Amino acid sequence: MSDTNFKGRVTIPTDVDVVPETLELVKRWGADAIRDCDGTDYPEELKNVDAKVYSTYYTTRKDNAWAKANPEEIQQMYIMTPFYTAVESELSIHLMNHLYPDMLKVNSHDDITRWWEVMDRTTGEPLESSQWEYSEETGDVTIHNAKEFHDYTVSFLAYIMWDPVHMYNAVTNGWTNFEKQITFDVRQPKTKEYSMKRLRKFIADNPHVDVIRYTTFFHQFTLIFDELAREKYVDWYGYSASVSPYILEQFEKEVGYKFRPEFIIDQGYMNNTYRIPSKEFQDFQAFQRREVAKLAKEMVDITHECGKEAMMFLGDHWIGMEPFMDEFKNIGLDAVVGSVGNGSTLRLISDIKGVKYTEGRFLPYFFPDTFHEGGDPVKEAKVNWVTARRAILRSPIDRIGYGGYLKLAMEFPEFIDYVESVCNEFRTLYENIKGTTPYCIKKVAVLNSWGKMRAWGNHMVHHAIYYKQNYSYAGIIEALSGAPFDVQFISFDDIRENPAILDDIDVVLNVGGAYTAYTGGENWADETIVTAVKRFIYNGGGFIGVGEPTAYQHEGRFFQLAGVMGVEKETGFTLNTDKYNWDEHEHFITEDCKGDVDFGEGQKAIYALPETTIIKQNDKEVQMAVHEFGKGRSVYISGLPYSFENSRVLYRAIIWASHDEENLHKWFSDNYNVEVHAYVKNGKYCVVNNTYEPQDTTVYKGDGSSFALHLEANEIKWYEI
Amino acid sequence: MSDTNFKGRVTIPTDVDVVPETLELVKRWGADAIRDCDGTDYPEELKNVDAKVYSTYYTTRKDNAWAKANPEEIQQMYIMTPFYTAVESELSIHLMNHLYPDMLKVNSHDDITRWWEVMDRTTGEPLESSQWEYSEETGDVTIHNAKEFHDYTVSFLAYIMWDPVHMYNAVTNGWTNFEKQITFDVRQPKTKEYSMKRLRKFIADNPHVDVIRYTTFFHQFTLIFDELAREKYVDWYGYSASVSPYILEQFEKEVGYKFRPEFIIDQGYMNNTYRIPSKEFQDFQAFQRREVAKLAKEMVDITHECGKEAMMFLGDHWIGMEPFMDEFKNIGLDAVVGSVGNGSTLRLISDIKGVKYTEGRFLPYFFPDTFHEGGDPVKEAKVNWVTARRAILRSPIDRIGYGGYLKLAMEFPEFIDYVESVCNEFRTLYENIKGTTPYCIKKVAVLNSWGKMRAWGNHMVHHAIYYKQNYSYAGIIEALSGAPFDVQFISFDDIRENPAILDDIDVVLNVGGAYTAYTGGENWADETIVTAVKRFIYNGGGFIGVGEPTAYQHEGRFFQLAGVMGVEKETGFTLNTDKYNWDEHEHFITEDCKGDVDFGEGQKAIYALPETTIIKQNDKEVQMAVHEFGKGRSVYISGLPYSFENSRVLYRAIIWASHDEENLHKWFSDNYNVEVHAYVKNGKYCVVNNTYEPQDTTVYKGDGSSFALHLEANEIKWYEI
Ligand SMILES: [Mg+2]
Ligand SMILES: [Mg+2]
Ligand SMILES: [Mg+2]
Repeated sequence: MSDTNFKGRVTIPTDVDVVPETLELVKRWGADAIRDCDGTDYPEELKNVDAKVYSTYYTTRKDNAWAKANPEEIQQMYIMTPFYTAVESELSIHLMNHLYPDMLKVNSHDDITRWWEVMDRTTGEPLESSQWEYSEETGDVTIHNAKEFHDYTVSFLAYIMWDPVHMYNAVTNGWTNFEKQITFDVRQPKTKEYSMKRLRKFIADNPHVDVIRYTTFFHQFTLIFDELAREKYVDWYGYSASVSPYILEQFEKEVGYKFRPEFIIDQGYMNNTYRIPSKEFQDFQAFQRREVAKLAKEMVDITHECGKEAMMFLGDHWIGMEPFMDEFKNIGLDAVVGSVGNGSTLRLISDIKGVKYTEGRFLPYFFPDTFHEGGDPVKEAKVNWVTARRAILRSPIDRIGYGGYLKLAMEFPEFIDYVESVCNEFRTLYENIKGTTPYCIKKVAVLNSWGKMRAWGNHMVHHAIYYKQNYSYAGIIEALSGAPFDVQFISFDDIRENPAILDDIDVVLNVGGAYTAYTGGENWADETIVTAVKRFIYNGGGFIGVGEPTAYQHEGRFFQLAGVMGVEKETGFTLNTDKYNWDEHEHFITEDCKGDVDFGEGQKAIYALPETTIIKQNDKEVQMAVHEFGKGRSVYISGLPYSFENSRVLYRAIIWASHDEENLHKWFSDNYNVEVHAYVKNGKYCVVNNTYEPQDTTVYKGDGSSFALHLEANEIKWYEI
Repeated sequence: MSDTNFKGRVTIPTDVDVVPETLELVKRWGADAIRDCDGTDYPEELKNVDAKVYSTYYTTRKDNAWAKANPEEIQQMYIMTPFYTAVESELSIHLMNHLYPDMLKVNSHDDITRWWEVMDRTTGEPLESSQWEYSEETGDVTIHNAKEFHDYTVSFLAYIMWDPVHMYNAVTNGWTNFEKQITFDVRQPKTKEYSMKRLRKFIADNPHVDVIRYTTFFHQFTLIFDELAREKYVDWYGYSASVSPYILEQFEKEVGYKFRPEFIIDQGYMNNTYRIPSKEFQDFQAFQRREVAKLAKEMVDITHECGKEAMMFLGDHWIGMEPFMDEFKNIGLDAVVGSVGNGSTLRLISDIKGVKYTEGRFLPYFFPDTFHEGGDPVKEAKVNWVTARRAILRSPIDRIGYGGYLKLAMEFPEFIDYVESVCNEFRTLYENIKGTTPYCIKKVAVLNSWGKMRAWGNHMVHHAIYYKQNYSYAGIIEALSGAPFDVQFISFDDIRENPAILDDIDVVLNVGGAYTAYTGGENWADETIVTAVKRFIYNGGGFIGVGEPTAYQHEGRFFQLAGVMGVEKETGFTLNTDKYNWDEHEHFITEDCKGDVDFGEGQKAIYALPETTIIKQNDKEVQMAVHEFGKGRSVYISGLPYSFENSRVLYRAIIWASHDEENLHKWFSDNYNVEVHAYVKNGKYCVVNNTYEPQDTTVYKGDGSSFALHLEANEIKWYEI
């Protein structure tokens, strides 16, 4: 470790009751920035400390006086009721059923015949507004002349009377005696004007603050609680709480067609990221991105005018602030900070362009859910750091930080020690790799309906949270986040606009379940897409399909690239066809595997076509197979949860698919628990042990020469090339 | 056993080399009919035996002289080539690739521009005939101006130069030195005229024959062999070998629209029974049924005129002879004989109306695959008999029989003994139940796209053969085949024509995978269907959904009856919705289960809606759940392979779904390995042990009174009511 790396690049939280502890950590962790958090205050005594001061700034809440004085400019969201079956000609639907009553208030102030929609879900048709009415008294929509045994839903607007993140923090921490913060809508005219003044006043009132940490801008991701205050619906990427008649009228004007609530409601699926986005929803997102960016820029400009830095928290009210889209770069933000759950979420932050620096907030958050008697915060911290480190070595954030109640953390001295070592390790690492692009062995492109807009966020429902139905797919993205590849995320629209974007790609990946945005569904029935991808592969490109890749039932095939991948899914339609190809074969891709590959949820009913090489089948259900198509190569994998072994499987699959087996032993570790990263421009490379045990390996350098190496648990070793 | 039951109702095979053995078995088994088989001859010495003589009659083969003299009237079938990708503007496709060369011959005699179709499978469009040509010399279709990286297939007609069943028998038995029998087409004018004369001659030449056992009529079910003489494609219900330009021109005339090969080819899926049938295919089937029935009647009339009986074999060239459809009754057949693989296949035979008697051919067939050193034909025979007996007790066949080489069977004396006991048991059983309708506790309807046309044949690809992808569904049909219910098979069209058909049903079942004919796919987006079924349930009807029932992605739901069943499938679109209902509950339905229910393949990713009662979930994937809807009840089951325990699960599910728990203990056995069947009109009931071990149980009679009973392995006991 270099002597110069004892200070900087670290942010810590504080509160009024931990002044000496804060000062101690500034020294021990080498912190050069201090922050407040939701539910903490910045102590008077630290206003002149030798560190940057971040202040959380809540653009859309923490000013109930304003909200209450301007109730028509309270933020709104679209809600769809559950399905109700008409069993007679009249059907009443109580809108607030199963919703937390203090969080939402039905907006019947705006013209409900224009902004609400009562849908016959049996036919998919909206009802004429003359066919239903709303009673303020009962809170019910009553449908007249309902068709018996049809299902109905009501799409309506509701005011957000308790900010969902504030509610989450209050419920999680058991806060009592506080006022529920109302979310107001900075997009609306009076609030916009007020908000700019409020921001200037905040800056003026807080001269000790260096960095305004926007948490966040204007619209909360979709987060709804049920009648028991439990999370009911969450979409970290959801746009349904970014609406109001004021905004929607502008949208209508811009796109030139009539708005329908269904554009947002989407049959109740709320355009979540698994849905193949409709044109109308894409139009709406584009409109929001532009408008949100424009307004954010106004605030950033004020921040700069007042001599402060503007930092954005990646999360909470971040809707419309799509960090990988073009509008973002023009906002002029100085920094982005986000929570690091794993390698994928690290790269959600570190891959952002157009800001001066990025910061990762590491886990565990200093909340009592981890920092309690019997809790093991060191373990959580280790897993979080080691997992994220893989990704940092590919695309470094510029700073690391922690959040929560410092008082809680101080009761765990081993934790304080461990984080001290992390801070030092991070600074050394940053020093060694700054300003370079790490050596990339291959260029891979993840192809789905979202492209760069959801780069690194594929199969992410709510940040890095586990879901049984997607961890076998998310594992691919996580493996890529720390792998020595140049990773692009491209959309079907990208190919439609310019099929030549595939020309400099080595391997295309298509990962996920059938009919979802992540595999692409109907896009595979578009001859432009299917011929472009087939041409790419035929001419020597690689293709890796995971799960139900290219699935779309069309013209005799379920997998539209069945002929390329050499596998097909038995949906019942081909039971009549005899299948004789079941033998497994040893293969380059699985050479480092110690036992059975973990395919996670895997797939049922996948079979191989006659010419295909099966690597693994379980009880006549293919889990991994390879097939050549022209000069190209395809790999099918049923699922691949993240693990060090599976990262190696994916690594080898990419090398094989791009015909580069002979160069496997370059910047390579025999032992897959250890990885090698080269920074050629800086003349450095590192070898890193990703596990919590010591490891022995043989390290191969770029010229193929090798040496044996022992590494301690989690150790990272730096070398000159 | 009654003294009168030592003779009759049994058919045995014979051959020239087993005359004394045949006579021995006539006595020991009480056989009253003797038959020949494919590859055997009827011995001269037995022509005056005291038994009916059946003679296999091959309507469409065993006359190569005729076939060769009339090559244009050889039977034809539609074949689709595999998919071929164009990688340049010209693409050649060799039609006979991967087909057994001796079996098929390309028909380029008829106008190929009219009867063939070259399809662009990327777009789904047929090519103009000017864009391709066929070379007799190479056997290739060559496409000009092909679109690069589009896939192409050729649909063409081929003559059947080796009858598929003859080929199967020859290959299975290793026949050598024989002539491959060509299949000729009795529907065509010259062959039709000839065939009637040929039939009269056969009858005249064989005065010893009492019964013409037609094997079968005119069109073979789809059966194709690959270049290695392995089965390549089989559909026991397939119509693709029932075509010729001659027939198709008549079809065109009848329906009034232009024929396209795609009507038969169906993207290569060949309209197998998992496909939701198109209007054109249904029209074609109806046309074939009428024409085949008309022609079969001519042969049956000749048979009768010559003083013989006409028996049809249910299988082989049986296409168009749909035994549950109206046309069948008018043919005037005396009998139907079919192979018995299990309870479902038994009822395929025994439920046929409009014939004087039905006969089941039991397994094992006397072929060397079972009757070899080390083989265990007794075990096969036991399993076959005991499995079929359940169904016989619900709907008896009138006769039993065996087939194959008698010589082989005689080498297994224990087998001869066992079958002797079966023959006696069958005669007693038949005596006791003849002429009655067994007591039915409930009326259940299996709802799918086929209705009565595929009654008892649901999830049947090739007779009773096991498929991993459907045994979990076929198990329901098998359980029903021997259960005390009045079972109907109804189609979506039946409901569309008259929703009142549901009025006298107790429980509706929908069983199978998504988007197949067995669950119905798009039919569930038809408001007529969905409201009729919901109304039926709401008013007190029962619904049992198995697998992916009512699946069709539409208006916010994957299961269209999610609201009724209380379960939905997680396809990715509802990952954002929190799911809190995971607790399992004890339930009436599973009260007799000894451990975990065997759901077979089960289902992944099924979750319960909040009000649903989960009976079983594995790792948060629901396998069984119940839900009430109005006065009705619904049961969801992920899959239910056939077993005695699962039969009981289904039995209880039907009782529960129809609100009849209090009457469970009527005509009931505590021990689910034992079943009770009542024949009220005949004043009899029986108790039957379905297992190969002794069983103890408590038997409940119709008045609820009970007694303890011990039964030997497989035993059946008869009682007076
Ligand atoms: Mg925070
Ligand atoms: Mg390349
Ligand atoms: Mg009823």
